[in-house]
Amino acid sequence: MSAIADTLLSQTAVVDEKAVKSFPNSKKIYVQGSRADIRVPMREISLAKTHNGQVEEENPPLTVYDTSGAYSDVDANIDIRKGLAALRQSWLEERDDTIIIGETSSEYGQSRLKDPELAVLRFNQKNNIRRAKPGKNVSQMHYAKKGIITPEMEFISIRENQRFDEYQDKKLAWHHQGIDYGANLPGNITPEFVRKEVAEGRAIIPANINHPEIEPMIIGRNFLVKINANIGNSAVSSSIEEEVEKMTWAIRWGADNVMDLSTGKNIHETREWIIRNSPVPIGTVPIYQALEKVEGKAENLTWEIFKDTLIEQAEQGVDYFTLHAGVRLAYVPLTAKRLTGIVSRGGSIMAKWCLAHHEENFIYTHFEDICEIMKAYDVSFSLGDGLRPGCIADANDAAQFGELETLGELTQVAWKHDVQTMIEGPGHVPMHKIKENMEKQLEKCNEAPFYTLGPLTTDIAPGYDHITSAIGAAMIGWYGTAMLCYVTPKEHLGLPNKDDVKDGIITYKLAAHAADLAKGHPVAQLRDNALSKARFEFRWEDQFNLSLDPDKAREFHDQTLPKDAHKVAHFCSMCGPNFCSMKITQDIRDYADKKGIDNVDKALQKGMKEKAKEFKQKGTEIYSKV
Amino acid sequence: MSAIADTLLSQTAVVDEKAVKSFPNSKKIYVQGSRADIRVPMREISLAKTHNGQVEEENPPLTVYDTSGAYSDVDANIDIRKGLAALRQSWLEERDDTIIIGETSSEYGQSRLKDPELAVLRFNQKNNIRRAKPGKNVSQMHYAKKGIITPEMEFISIRENQRFDEYQDKKLAWHHQGIDYGANLPGNITPEFVRKEVAEGRAIIPANINHPEIEPMIIGRNFLVKINANIGNSAVSSSIEEEVEKMTWAIRWGADNVMDLSTGKNIHETREWIIRNSPVPIGTVPIYQALEKVEGKAENLTWEIFKDTLIEQAEQGVDYFTLHAGVRLAYVPLTAKRLTGIVSRGGSIMAKWCLAHHEENFIYTHFEDICEIMKAYDVSFSLGDGLRPGCIADANDAAQFGELETLGELTQVAWKHDVQTMIEGPGHVPMHKIKENMEKQLEKCNEAPFYTLGPLTTDIAPGYDHITSAIGAAMIGWYGTAMLCYVTPKEHLGLPNKDDVKDGIITYKLAAHAADLAKGHPVAQLRDNALSKARFEFRWEDQFNLSLDPDKAREFHDQTLPKDAHKVAHFCSMCGPNFCSMKITQDIRDYADKKGIDNVDKALQKGMKEKAKEFKQKGTEIYSKV
Repeated sequence: MSAIADTLLSQTAVVDEKAVKSFPNSKKIYVQGSRADIRVPMREISLAKTHNGQVEEENPPLTVYDTSGAYSDVDANIDIRKGLAALRQSWLEERDDTIIIGETSSEYGQSRLKDPELAVLRFNQKNNIRRAKPGKNVSQMHYAKKGIITPEMEFISIRENQRFDEYQDKKLAWHHQGIDYGANLPGNITPEFVRKEVAEGRAIIPANINHPEIEPMIIGRNFLVKINANIGNSAVSSSIEEEVEKMTWAIRWGADNVMDLSTGKNIHETREWIIRNSPVPIGTVPIYQALEKVEGKAENLTWEIFKDTLIEQAEQGVDYFTLHAGVRLAYVPLTAKRLTGIVSRGGSIMAKWCLAHHEENFIYTHFEDICEIMKAYDVSFSLGDGLRPGCIADANDAAQFGELETLGELTQVAWKHDVQTMIEGPGHVPMHKIKENMEKQLEKCNEAPFYTLGPLTTDIAPGYDHITSAIGAAMIGWYGTAMLCYVTPKEHLGLPNKDDVKDGIITYKLAAHAADLAKGHPVAQLRDNALSKARFEFRWEDQFNLSLDPDKAREFHDQTLPKDAHKVAHFCSMCGPNFCSMKITQDIRDYADKKGIDNVDKALQKGMKEKAKEFKQKGTEIYSKV
Repeated sequence: MSAIADTLLSQTAVVDEKAVKSFPNSKKIYVQGSRADIRVPMREISLAKTHNGQVEEENPPLTVYDTSGAYSDVDANIDIRKGLAALRQSWLEERDDTIIIGETSSEYGQSRLKDPELAVLRFNQKNNIRRAKPGKNVSQMHYAKKGIITPEMEFISIRENQRFDEYQDKKLAWHHQGIDYGANLPGNITPEFVRKEVAEGRAIIPANINHPEIEPMIIGRNFLVKINANIGNSAVSSSIEEEVEKMTWAIRWGADNVMDLSTGKNIHETREWIIRNSPVPIGTVPIYQALEKVEGKAENLTWEIFKDTLIEQAEQGVDYFTLHAGVRLAYVPLTAKRLTGIVSRGGSIMAKWCLAHHEENFIYTHFEDICEIMKAYDVSFSLGDGLRPGCIADANDAAQFGELETLGELTQVAWKHDVQTMIEGPGHVPMHKIKENMEKQLEKCNEAPFYTLGPLTTDIAPGYDHITSAIGAAMIGWYGTAMLCYVTPKEHLGLPNKDDVKDGIITYKLAAHAADLAKGHPVAQLRDNALSKARFEFRWEDQFNLSLDPDKAREFHDQTLPKDAHKVAHFCSMCGPNFCSMKITQDIRDYADKKGIDNVDKALQKGMKEKAKEFKQKGTEIYSKV
């Protein structure tokens, strides 16, 4: 164990070099809000000019959503032993509804703190744990319902808009070409709009008061579709520093949320390191750790152990808990005839407990007690789908939809306590059954945000389940799912390494983006258009830099055409210099431009051969000289 | 050049070892039809027994569709210098409507044949080129319309059914669990059903009489969704042997069709080698070669050169031609205001020709002449979408749909000549605009099969466009597209290597399969269920072998748990031995089985604590011993 600790202390002062490096031709910018301490991070990608014959055209930089935190800010000092700056601290303090309790009030947390053997593993605690003053509710939903626009909400409104107004002001026609703004989306996301969505339960802002380091973000179907990346050790492999590195790696590539699903050793300490260094909300499944505390025997779980675990994690700063409250005793037998039974770990633990005790699920029976904890720290519910289908054959069955109905009832209870709530969804669903999932969820859960795992649309491609599930994820995102939990290529086969995590994230970013496009989110198409224009104009560097993964785009291009000169060449490896449709189109357009598009139309209508002859003499010469 | 030839002659006698190897635990079987020479190849995957406590259960082998030809038959002698056996020769001869013309009647083909310098590159021609007797029409559509069921049609009916009847007879409940047979699909694909679909134009059987080596397959929306892989050299890189190897590699992983899109050197000879060794239909874009013949100057193209190219390729055995007949003069200016103009190579060549001559597209004006050629060899039309959108912003515009309307008119002309016809489609389309493409195509083209390239659902992920497009491909396949043209990870960036080809194919196989599932094709779900059952029962080897890519599934598993013992272990690396939801579910099911599911229900309803106590004593012991 001290080997792990040594590695940890020696290597974690700086995180992986790749993860701190800024993106090519990009700079971190901060857009200020109504006050000096609302500074919203974004990435600005500079673009080259368009050279079109004699004419030069400026291409304004493109601003994109940035989840990578201070790690991609070349001016930031990163020391993961100290953790990130507490961005939200002044906001929490000025609300004056919390107290500092110092050390954790969790029994288990205290025992870990007192164990001298753990000193080498422990993050340097500051003992500034916060909780609501007695009788206070510190959830964003509570403020929202009272009509208060928090700094978090303003931050989010700026973040979601991505300087769209500036593009609008510049009237850049190409930026807007083909954009369908959709029926339900506002052209401009105001702080008040954010507040209203949170107040009415359609969106959540996961933001535990003990996680002041986060850059606030929102999960709701009237905002950009978000993605979650899972990390976490297991009994079989991986260590603390690997998990922290996975987190920084995940947010570099675009994870909006990270779930720590550790089930191995030192879960408590691992989590502390992750949270203190994470600018994105962290979710957990507390039952995993509770089960560890009873040595893996589900039937030995008790409400008291579970409650202490919730407090332990809430005081560390976990932003949302996956709780399998809907696995009710009566639903368990419904899974016996399934092809793959129960595949949710949390779901099967609770099912086993229910059968062993022949009692109702204690998470269900103690749900209001849990609400009291949630609102004291602003932990959000992520109501788990413990009975989700584990294969195509089991999709949309009675067990799954029975549980969903219960989750809907519990959403009402949570909202009564002003506790923010989202609902987890499947899993494995063939394409023709996906829409029903979304419709039922919106109906049963009163439009609480949906958060799905994929779903996988076929089971026959292990090794490619990031793709089988990206198909389902993009579709359900379009239909209204607010956050997509990623799936890596290793799903069903093994633990993901860093490459797998990256593959999973990029795949889910593109699925979420495809959903944003299909929903007509105002800012989504700007990036597609900027990249397409760069592609059309052979601005290879811009094409790489605008892509979700500039490194891979460049690497692939270099495999066929490694020379630097090719980066500005007006052709590519696919067709070669004399055989390029883009080039031919450019010639057609130049011609149309020169003569005026109306003239071309006229010429075509009247069949004036002269015009054609002229093009043949001039236009084709231009082409054949290339 | 002689270096290439040397390599070719020394290395191509056997193809890449990986491509000839049989799949793990699989054997090649041949299902005989109504006559001895109808032998339909399939792959049969053997499965291990289920061990469930004391009970053993047989798992019958699963039969899957097999595109890999003789290359995966351990008993076959492969010598690519000789080419594959002419499977269809007796069928062609007994129809007695063709004559052997010996050497090619194409002028260009003759000149290549007479060039002594090409001797080293040339496939060993047999000079047995065939064409229809004067006045005869040898297309499968022609026979179908006359009510004739050809051996090709019977072969296809057996191939599409995949021994489904046998599974049905065995009444294997799990095989059918959750299968929704859909409204429009027959439970059993009969030869007569195949004939009717071809006669009515809803399906095509690409089967040039000069490609007797093919194992017949069908493209139509009431059959399994097919995929096409593109190969082909370019001016920048790759050689003949690489292309042949790419073809054998592509069909190993499941390409139903291969298009040879060569634009580099020795296109004629490359094509001959590919066709003689291909058990799947080969498509081409003849304008690429025609353009080479006029040294890349589109305006110098003539009908005569093009016609000679069509005959040259038809007599080599190309099964379908992509012809950009719908790029009409009047549509060209509609593309000038697009973000990315014309991106189809064939489309831009024809557009350039139209503008240069100010004349109507010669492929359009000579369409009936072309039909005469097509029906003399049974070459199918793949009417190209030369004006397809090149980016999200340009999707579903006037140019694209204008061309589609023309393709619909031309389909009617082709059908008048009994020439088999499919329609090519986009390209780049956001999710919410995909369905409109399918609906318009079915309407305008009278249900002729649709064959789409993706479509990509976003442009922001170069390096991952196999995935951005698999999303669109799966969706449009579900909506009714009959064949999906694959996209590799290198799309827009470079030429695909063998790994890219494989990635593209597996990605498209899973997309096509997801579409089959969503359409409710009877045989599709068998494989999902078999794999899911293997997964649930920890039959790791079976899970690997049933997957689309057994090699990768095994490799990924071994990265975390390399020991052989783990292949039969009742746990996996994700959760470890004491924390496995599958295991817990198995316990629940064992309990339900032992007590009877009705008893469990009763127990639950009556709240009999005794039952629970019993489970606690017995069931949990079973679990905790693992």
